[in-house]
Amino acid sequence: MSMDLTFLGTGSAYPSPHRGASALVLRNDGDCWLFDCGEGTQTQLMKSPIRAGRISKVFISHLHGDHLFGLPGLLCTVSLNLTSDSRADDKCVEVFGPRGLRRFLRVSLGLTGSQLLFPYAVHELEPTLDQSPEEGQLSLEMTAANDPPLPQERPGRNISLDTLSDAYFLFEDDKFVVKAFRLFHRVPSFGFCVHERDRPGRLKTELLKEIGLNPGPAYGRLKAGHQVQLENGQVISPAEFLDENIPGRKVCILGDCSSALSSGLNVCQGADLLVHEATLGEAHRDKAAERGHSTPRMAAELARACGARRLALYHFSQRYKPEHLHRDGDDDDKVSELRRQAEEVLCDDSVEVILAEDFLTIDIPLRASKSSR
Amino acid sequence: MSMDLTFLGTGSAYPSPHRGASALVLRNDGDCWLFDCGEGTQTQLMKSPIRAGRISKVFISHLHGDHLFGLPGLLCTVSLNLTSDSRADDKCVEVFGPRGLRRFLRVSLGLTGSQLLFPYAVHELEPTLDQSPEEGQLSLEMTAANDPPLPQERPGRNISLDTLSDAYFLFEDDKFVVKAFRLFHRVPSFGFCVHERDRPGRLKTELLKEIGLNPGPAYGRLKAGHQVQLENGQVISPAEFLDENIPGRKVCILGDCSSALSSGLNVCQGADLLVHEATLGEAHRDKAAERGHSTPRMAAELARACGARRLALYHFSQRYKPEHLHRDGDDDDKVSELRRQAEEVLCDDSVEVILAEDFLTIDIPLRASKSSR
Repeated sequence: MSMDLTFLGTGSAYPSPHRGASALVLRNDGDCWLFDCGEGTQTQLMKSPIRAGRISKVFISHLHGDHLFGLPGLLCTVSLNLTSDSRADDKCVEVFGPRGLRRFLRVSLGLTGSQLLFPYAVHELEPTLDQSPEEGQLSLEMTAANDPPLPQERPGRNISLDTLSDAYFLFEDDKFVVKAFRLFHRVPSFGFCVHERDRPGRLKTELLKEIGLNPGPAYGRLKAGHQVQLENGQVISPAEFLDENIPGRKVCILGDCSSALSSGLNVCQGADLLVHEATLGEAHRDKAAERGHSTPRMAAELARACGARRLALYHFSQRYKPEHLHRDGDDDDKVSELRRQAEEVLCDDSVEVILAEDFLTIDIPLRASKSSR
Repeated sequence: MSMDLTFLGTGSAYPSPHRGASALVLRNDGDCWLFDCGEGTQTQLMKSPIRAGRISKVFISHLHGDHLFGLPGLLCTVSLNLTSDSRADDKCVEVFGPRGLRRFLRVSLGLTGSQLLFPYAVHELEPTLDQSPEEGQLSLEMTAANDPPLPQERPGRNISLDTLSDAYFLFEDDKFVVKAFRLFHRVPSFGFCVHERDRPGRLKTELLKEIGLNPGPAYGRLKAGHQVQLENGQVISPAEFLDENIPGRKVCILGDCSSALSSGLNVCQGADLLVHEATLGEAHRDKAAERGHSTPRMAAELARACGARRLALYHFSQRYKPEHLHRDGDDDDKVSELRRQAEEVLCDDSVEVILAEDFLTIDIPLRASKSSR
């Protein structure tokens, strides 16, 4: 039930000794999902408490190198360090990202003779034409994976926009529903929404004991939403004996963008945590927008519009040194100033603004159900 | 005239926080040549005194990821940080490496929309069939660069083995002759030999003054090897008034290998510095050879056979921590033990053995000419 998010790299454009290139890991009960994988991510992982071998899914927001160049090396190193127990189930690593990603991996791994010891599949998102200027769009020829698949590559899906919901449906399991949505950037870029399913509320055990039902299999059936017949013939329904559902958590992680396209607002509605880029401060707003990037204010406006509870800013220009390295001088380059600019927008909304740094871990607690005690 | 070599990464297989992946820079008078470019090389460069923008040539020994995955990102970052003065001459970055490298760069840079602001050319070395087992050879289909060239890509040469010299002639200029030679590894791998041209010896100015020739243009003509006529009509020849030639330095940098093919011995003969991998210690000799790698003893035997003056060992398994991090425990994992194993072979040859660490710089001094005072 624990869920947290760790930033492995918070710098834009390239990795530096002070800020790694984009990468973050969402952990839930030990399962790790990696979002973006700039160069050096594998080394950042080694410096963090996260084990690379636990990464089961990878999400690439867009194909710029500072979000992608670390992926072939990371997969190779995970494979090299495989022990018999660490991936004994031969589980397929699922990789999601824009069209072209499958070819990138096939060529990078193929030419370097990299033979992974675990299967992987690349599921490609088909961008739409309004996500980027024309010069940022890749031709079908360039992105077609015409090389034969590598021995460990499994067939991946090609995922198109669901026009009804204006989102990309990536997958769902018994715990999560995961979607992608469109952003506007110099090249097609995506945001990802991880939405945990609601859980049944706490069982009112005191009440059950009062009517003579003691702990046993019947408790499980009630919790699973089924009616139960008591020894005296009385049938009780779960609604009376369960607290309200515990709402599932929602974490939204946006790739580089100067704005989200329409669906972003809907998909991110009520997010527990919105992770948004803030490449440059307000003084450089025009430059940011021109390059398809955001300022803290732009990020905060989206957070407010979708009623997010917390906003984490990341993907800072390398001009913004981490706070502990900042020396007196140009206040314009103070990273704390970026937080201030976002807080200015959100001061009436009691939205917490978090400034990400490399290796920062943000806990994402369960929301209490309304009637829980 | 200054020449030195800096190790940016000395680890094998993958980069770690203690040892970067393979990369080293040979500097001569400010011009920087990069040999191999594992993931994270750009960050290692930032931590070193070397400016990435000064790299004019890149040599890739073989296509394994730990020698290559940093190259697309490095080129992008150099381009991003270009200032009007740093590469105002629009000089072409020359990249040398095995067949397949051109395609790797074209696809990696193309799919990530990386538009370099400087021209580059990839010159491919055609491996021979005896450099690697059959399963390590890449098909012509896989290595063919069929995508259209990127806007900044200039035509590169395809370089075949010169059967007469059993070497690959890469280029020469007024200061250097640079060749490659074949190594045996799991995939085709190459060594590079940078051979500085001999320089004329010191002018015997005392002798010239004795015969009445004072400093002036005649000195330059003598130094350049021309005869000079004195005022009295006497013709003097340079041989009498010059010390012996100062022999050019020779630096040989070998990629991963379990042995050099025949020409290696000839090309490396008399090297001032031989840089050789030593992935595993003698206790793991069979494992090393099986994986196409060397032990310190194997490296030392080559150094002795070609009469090298100094041997630098690098490309250590990540099990060998840098000396300052070594804790008491298994002596088998002591990196100093690797030096000892090489020295054991070379004890009678007065060959200096150097254990490379990340950021170590080795000065390569001019050899004195025999008659210099």
